[in-house]
Amino acid sequence: VTELRQDPTTNEWVIIAHARSKRPYDFSKDREIKSTPAFVEDCSLCPGNENMTPPEVAVYRQESGTSPWLIRVVPNLFPALSPSAETGERLVDSHFKAKGGFGFHEVIIETPHHNQTLPKMGTSHVELVLQAYRDRYKALSKETGIRAVLIFKNHGVTAGTSLSHPHSQIIAAPIVSTHDKKKLEIAKEHYSGTGRCLYCDINSWELENRNRLVFETDRFAVFHPYASHYPFETWISPKKHEPCFGNANSEDLSDLAEVLPKTLRRMDSVLGEPDFNYVFHTAPVDDEGREFLHWYIQLIPRIWTAAGFEIGTGIYINTSVPEETAKYMKEA
Amino acid sequence: VTELRQDPTTNEWVIIAHARSKRPYDFSKDREIKSTPAFVEDCSLCPGNENMTPPEVAVYRQESGTSPWLIRVVPNLFPALSPSAETGERLVDSHFKAKGGFGFHEVIIETPHHNQTLPKMGTSHVELVLQAYRDRYKALSKETGIRAVLIFKNHGVTAGTSLSHPHSQIIAAPIVSTHDKKKLEIAKEHYSGTGRCLYCDINSWELENRNRLVFETDRFAVFHPYASHYPFETWISPKKHEPCFGNANSEDLSDLAEVLPKTLRRMDSVLGEPDFNYVFHTAPVDDEGREFLHWYIQLIPRIWTAAGFEIGTGIYINTSVPEETAKYMKEA
Repeated sequence: VTELRQDPTTNEWVIIAHARSKRPYDFSKDREIKSTPAFVEDCSLCPGNENMTPPEVAVYRQESGTSPWLIRVVPNLFPALSPSAETGERLVDSHFKAKGGFGFHEVIIETPHHNQTLPKMGTSHVELVLQAYRDRYKALSKETGIRAVLIFKNHGVTAGTSLSHPHSQIIAAPIVSTHDKKKLEIAKEHYSGTGRCLYCDINSWELENRNRLVFETDRFAVFHPYASHYPFETWISPKKHEPCFGNANSEDLSDLAEVLPKTLRRMDSVLGEPDFNYVFHTAPVDDEGREFLHWYIQLIPRIWTAAGFEIGTGIYINTSVPEETAKYMKEA
Repeated sequence: VTELRQDPTTNEWVIIAHARSKRPYDFSKDREIKSTPAFVEDCSLCPGNENMTPPEVAVYRQESGTSPWLIRVVPNLFPALSPSAETGERLVDSHFKAKGGFGFHEVIIETPHHNQTLPKMGTSHVELVLQAYRDRYKALSKETGIRAVLIFKNHGVTAGTSLSHPHSQIIAAPIVSTHDKKKLEIAKEHYSGTGRCLYCDINSWELENRNRLVFETDRFAVFHPYASHYPFETWISPKKHEPCFGNANSEDLSDLAEVLPKTLRRMDSVLGEPDFNYVFHTAPVDDEGREFLHWYIQLIPRIWTAAGFEIGTGIYINTSVPEETAKYMKEA
């Protein structure tokens, strides 16, 4: 099987090159699973080291007042974007465009326990993490000049983080990427042509076919997309049409608090606790009301490497077949 | 310094976040430089193991006839695209688009010597490698149904290759990526507005400013682009306007045979022989005559990791400043 599949959300083609790998599911070999202590003395995110981070912008406790914190949200010590930076656009050397690095970059410390990753937390704690995501989304999306808010998680060194304490990040940016603008255009065109949300359609196609479905709940569909760019790429998509994650209600978050760790546990079981990223795709700030957009989570285990072809063309070579990887996750 | 810079070739913004790294140039620490033998018995690309690859499509020898080979070009044993695959487009599950995985995927074995990387080869051998690139470009671009030909090199495990024997790859694809279509549109618009090639303009801006210039020769400008997506990203761009690498003449290749290894040696010296990719950007096959396109080489040391933010938005966070990295390379 070698075929090209078109991603309906970006119109980009993906090469599904099953034949490139002799043992396509042997992604977990040689992965060393280390045990991690509950507390690390020099970890800047562990309790007792609160002075190693900037002062918190939000905190969640068991009880109000001075009881120990459960979740802390702090500005990133080395932010990609900063609220104190300039906002204006200017010409550099008469030819190039620059903009001040205005924005926000926060770290969500998900738990006081150094070794309590999302799949190991209780559901109610995961729900609190998701509430923190939503609270920070709402707060940052209201800031003047912010056009896009991305919630994401880098887990493990190959996923781009050096901090092993469980944490997520939020970046609020003054621009919408050309990539997201393209996706918006495509979704808009689909809506104009059909009267339906493209992502609602994708959900119903996947729920109908079921050959790429991992599992579903009342509120979410979990599947490996038709034109997956990466092996075991997994989408968690709300069945209810909603462009903006900030508008997810408490029933949605409560369901998601079961769905997200369950998905991660299955991935861990099939692939041997790989490093991973997930990102919350959601409408740009001024487009939160658009009927053609839809929020969803994209989960990507780091069992691939973008090489020269991907860097040079933007076309991904996926050495596994989504129908087969979904089956693995379904049976896990 | 935290600022956004717009890539003039894609219109995408890049975040230049110098402040994120305390020691931005300390990219080479802990890199282990291993010595490699000249011959490895079970290496499928070493002489004597020719039967471990498919039969060669081209071979270059010291003398004609049966003298030992200097360069072999063979089809990839696990090709991403294959000439025997179908070419037609079809609908899958009534909703999704697929295309047969038609195309070509070849490996250019650059030398019989397992340990003779490009910076260590003599100039005349590098020139022969470049001639092989051009020959295969010309042959593959003439194949019916081919729309884009990418020459690229993955060097080292983190750059996406498991084979350590010096080799490059060529993939000839039946599609132009949406990324390349966007670049083409932007270049066309620049040409319409100014009457000049965007890439010729970029060359002259860089040659004028010189603050991102690494070095220049009669025929090439080597610089770190203004909106570099990756630390130490380096462009090698011909000064002469030419859309298609296939039209590079023997003087161009002769000059490039000095420029390319020199650039790699400087990168090795500053960064401690990092893994890297390079790609030859060139016009799509049917657009080889376009006055607004321009071929160039993009070299990327693998001293970065795309994390959740990059995957989620397509916006890159570059933790170094091109003016500073260029200075390092200039002084190497």
